[in-house]
Amino acid sequence: MAENGFRGASMAAIAAHAGVATGTAYVHYSSKDELVVAAYVEVKAALGVAGVEAIKEASAVEDVFRSLWNAMYRHLAADPVQARFLVQVQASPYAARAHEAALGQDALADHPALAVLFKELVDLPPVLLYDLGLGPAIRLAAGDGLSLSDDELDEVAAACWRAVSGR
Amino acid sequence: MAENGFRGASMAAIAAHAGVATGTAYVHYSSKDELVVAAYVEVKAALGVAGVEAIKEASAVEDVFRSLWNAMYRHLAADPVQARFLVQVQASPYAARAHEAALGQDALADHPALAVLFKELVDLPPVLLYDLGLGPAIRLAAGDGLSLSDDELDEVAAACWRAVSGR
Repeated sequence: MAENGFRGASMAAIAAHAGVATGTAYVHYSSKDELVVAAYVEVKAALGVAGVEAIKEASAVEDVFRSLWNAMYRHLAADPVQARFLVQVQASPYAARAHEAALGQDALADHPALAVLFKELVDLPPVLLYDLGLGPAIRLAAGDGLSLSDDELDEVAAACWRAVSGR
Repeated sequence: MAENGFRGASMAAIAAHAGVATGTAYVHYSSKDELVVAAYVEVKAALGVAGVEAIKEASAVEDVFRSLWNAMYRHLAADPVQARFLVQVQASPYAARAHEAALGQDALADHPALAVLFKELVDLPPVLLYDLGLGPAIRLAAGDGLSLSDDELDEVAAACWRAVSGR
């Protein structure tokens, strides 16, 4: 545990914690590490589907960003257990491995609109743009007790856009 | 562990993980919860001292923010174990309790320059302004393997300032 937050956990606890249908996966994965990564891939894939759906109608880059931000927040706020799982994995030593594994299953990662968006952002490593731009939506969905109005949510999304766009 | 990242940990592991002088504290605290909170208070107090020192010469609000941001990043980047401990506690169910306990020992929390700074920021709850403004400095210091140039660090601090100031 000193190194990661999952060492003390049972396989069942991880599956429950991720809030995903890994109950069956349970029999397929031989180690806890594999189960954490598999659950992460599953949560990110579903988030990616919500993101792709949301940007269908968007064309201007700011629209793409704001639609993505809102879709991610709403998708995860509907199930904060999943949001907390993402935050925990991203703060753990599993982060790099989980991220790598998730890329291949994430419809959003290869989406052409994302490549266009990236070209319009400030020149920083993608992991930082993610932390500044979309990270707040995920951490907000994971947070307890902070309930924001729609106007406040728009204000946070606008703050994230200023950070990553330089505008 | 499903609820928090510390349940599976020994007291010694938590003390080592926080990277602070809680080795002696160890005998004074009767529970692991108390030790996590005490270690958090200690890490935040030292960070607050670094912050107060950094803003001594600053007057304009943007200067205060940038000096604070840089001081926190540098203080924690010198000891990433402490940065990771902060990130883990802030993502755990201890967050509210640890934050509350830390306020009373944090020289920065009551600093008049901070009150002036807050008045210039966008109208969002303090916990969100922290996540958008100073959170990236802490997560960056906690991150493995991402080494940024001074120019890139300035770029990140500028992005955080845009986010929280609305400018």
